[in-house]
Amino acid sequence: MNAEIITIGDELLLGQVIDTNSAWIGQELNKIGLHVHFKSTISDTREAILQALTDAKKRSNVIVITGGLGPTKDDITKITLTEFFNTRLVLNQKVLDWVISIFTSRKLPMLESNNLQAMIPENCEVLWNKNGTAPGMWFFENDIAYISMPGVPFEMKTIFEEEAVPKLKSKFTFPEIIHRTIQTCGIGESFLAKQIAPLEDALPGYIRLAYLPAVGSVRLRFSAYGADQQKMNADLNGIVQHLYDLVGEFIFGEDEDSMQKVIGVLLKEKQLSLATAESCTGGYLAHLITSIPGSSAYYKGSIISYANEIKINELSVEPEILKTEGAVSETCVLQMAANLRNKFNTDFAIATSGIAGPEGGTASKPVGTVWIAVSSSQKTFARKFNMGDNRERTIERTGLTALDLLRRHILECY
Amino acid sequence: MNAEIITIGDELLLGQVIDTNSAWIGQELNKIGLHVHFKSTISDTREAILQALTDAKKRSNVIVITGGLGPTKDDITKITLTEFFNTRLVLNQKVLDWVISIFTSRKLPMLESNNLQAMIPENCEVLWNKNGTAPGMWFFENDIAYISMPGVPFEMKTIFEEEAVPKLKSKFTFPEIIHRTIQTCGIGESFLAKQIAPLEDALPGYIRLAYLPAVGSVRLRFSAYGADQQKMNADLNGIVQHLYDLVGEFIFGEDEDSMQKVIGVLLKEKQLSLATAESCTGGYLAHLITSIPGSSAYYKGSIISYANEIKINELSVEPEILKTEGAVSETCVLQMAANLRNKFNTDFAIATSGIAGPEGGTASKPVGTVWIAVSSSQKTFARKFNMGDNRERTIERTGLTALDLLRRHILECY
Repeated sequence: MNAEIITIGDELLLGQVIDTNSAWIGQELNKIGLHVHFKSTISDTREAILQALTDAKKRSNVIVITGGLGPTKDDITKITLTEFFNTRLVLNQKVLDWVISIFTSRKLPMLESNNLQAMIPENCEVLWNKNGTAPGMWFFENDIAYISMPGVPFEMKTIFEEEAVPKLKSKFTFPEIIHRTIQTCGIGESFLAKQIAPLEDALPGYIRLAYLPAVGSVRLRFSAYGADQQKMNADLNGIVQHLYDLVGEFIFGEDEDSMQKVIGVLLKEKQLSLATAESCTGGYLAHLITSIPGSSAYYKGSIISYANEIKINELSVEPEILKTEGAVSETCVLQMAANLRNKFNTDFAIATSGIAGPEGGTASKPVGTVWIAVSSSQKTFARKFNMGDNRERTIERTGLTALDLLRRHILECY
Repeated sequence: MNAEIITIGDELLLGQVIDTNSAWIGQELNKIGLHVHFKSTISDTREAILQALTDAKKRSNVIVITGGLGPTKDDITKITLTEFFNTRLVLNQKVLDWVISIFTSRKLPMLESNNLQAMIPENCEVLWNKNGTAPGMWFFENDIAYISMPGVPFEMKTIFEEEAVPKLKSKFTFPEIIHRTIQTCGIGESFLAKQIAPLEDALPGYIRLAYLPAVGSVRLRFSAYGADQQKMNADLNGIVQHLYDLVGEFIFGEDEDSMQKVIGVLLKEKQLSLATAESCTGGYLAHLITSIPGSSAYYKGSIISYANEIKINELSVEPEILKTEGAVSETCVLQMAANLRNKFNTDFAIATSGIAGPEGGTASKPVGTVWIAVSSSQKTFARKFNMGDNRERTIERTGLTALDLLRRHILECY
């Protein structure tokens, strides 16, 4: 069983709009055990649509089509589908009543183009669009399912979840796919691959491993394909256990976890509070933490001391230290973290200071040099890193690494 | 002349990663006058890659491939390209030296998999990857250009801009396209469209207008296609002048400007300094400002007062105000901004307080309610907004809107 996704629209080809629909559909199909093996994006012309459908039916059992932003563009998809299936458009009274009711309730005049939305290919079943006027459509021919939906994300999502998925489940029997994703931080992709080589080499043939690197972290995704759900889960559990044995110290979470979410869960669970004193991260660390809903329960705030006078006046860093060792030094971040923890009266404080670049590097402190300190009632400690020569990535890596240092400290001492 | 984009990776088909690369490449190809007529996403298997290349060469003059070139996945794309072109891998000493130098400078040991990155198909030219170890590759066969790049966005982008585009321009003749982009903030897409309707209706046939909405802003891109560069530039200048007449107050910049960059240029030029007091933006505003290299010249820092006690202790907000009017109130943000400006001794201070959600909304202050204040020696003022019901977008919109308020105030009073 294979699925493919066709997204229609010049705005997608031009890159004016990022195609998030197909990623979402890919996830949803995967959840029900349907493997997406191909995605394409095409122009909204009759020729391109006919070609894509002709190619798709040779290789896929389920074909999901989205595209068109308004009634005018929807027509090209619908009319071309009508031609492709060699059928004709007929009026669907239920859809027409619905379209009229929407326009009436919004006190808008009906246009001729809106009437046309109730004209439906004779061989299709309507997939009800309770959020808009353009109906979804289900075609079934030669054991292939064709699902056509408007491109507006929230309309598409509801049609897909409530109308298309139940139909798919009633028509086909799906193989099981189970995914487990493990999140790591603090180890590069190739080192990770080397450390877990014994595990990777011993993977059973029906389980695949993918490395998904991002800035400062690598996700490992295991996908098991088969019929015996119990065995698959047992095998995956064994593999994940083995993974923890091999590289457990680098694992911060699983599946949809993010570092900031994991930190939030830990702090909430243990009823501990946090503050940050940022120099080189310039607010990014605070932003990461506060991107989590409910973070006000454990996060009190930050002093961003971009200027040295703020480090002195607000964080009581000794002026002498700034002169002799500089702002990017162990002593400076230790003082920032310890003094902020006292000032804000929190259980933890994190401090960052570094040279994000592109200017400001020296021979002894090149661009990318970063000091991070963590302070708690147990201890105050600092570590030095080189985060590379790109400003944006240095800021992102430092934010993630700082939270990881805190995470490890909490697990170790609390 | 037609281009197509092939992105490789199961993580894209599964929807675990949203494909932003192909949107970016689509934009860049369009800038040089190359039309993308097809995009596909395929699995990282030999069969899928061979099939995609075989199909692509029948319909496209330029084929851009990304993904599957990391140290662990490396082999599949590169080896399959080697097979497709019926060639062999040879050692590229320059690439090997580069890979070694990266590992040496980072004080990391070389692994065998890293060595393999210097093995290159014999018929290709290397597209230098100055940000990573996996080189880009350029193939040219039967008047078709094939560009293969790693999928890591920042590596891909630099390779494409600095290596691939110059090569494309030297091999092919493109029609002249001149783009002018105007950045607006504070006005929605449909209102903008209504206000500039007279201009849009009068556009000459060879100039096209695209609306590119983002969170909190809309870019207007004018693209002129033709041969007479002088006339195109003159016409574009006239159109842009007309645009300023119609909606000038909403225009904050042109082309690659960002709001934070514009603010930085203004403050530097006038030698004025800035600090921020953030509640609901939680560091995002500071992060925006400090994402600009050299921002330490005008930005002193921030107090992020996520907890009310920080508002009271560090920003001298009257406890009585927090009790009677609440933290999300005009008086609170006015006090935050004015008091911080005194404390940090800056020319300007911006303060934000709002309900980012999803929790915390009430009937009188629903989720999305945000107060923003700006304080200067001229005046201290505040404005109220409703930023909608999505936490992430509320934070982003508030950051951008706060900077826009400051920008307008500087232009008006300084």
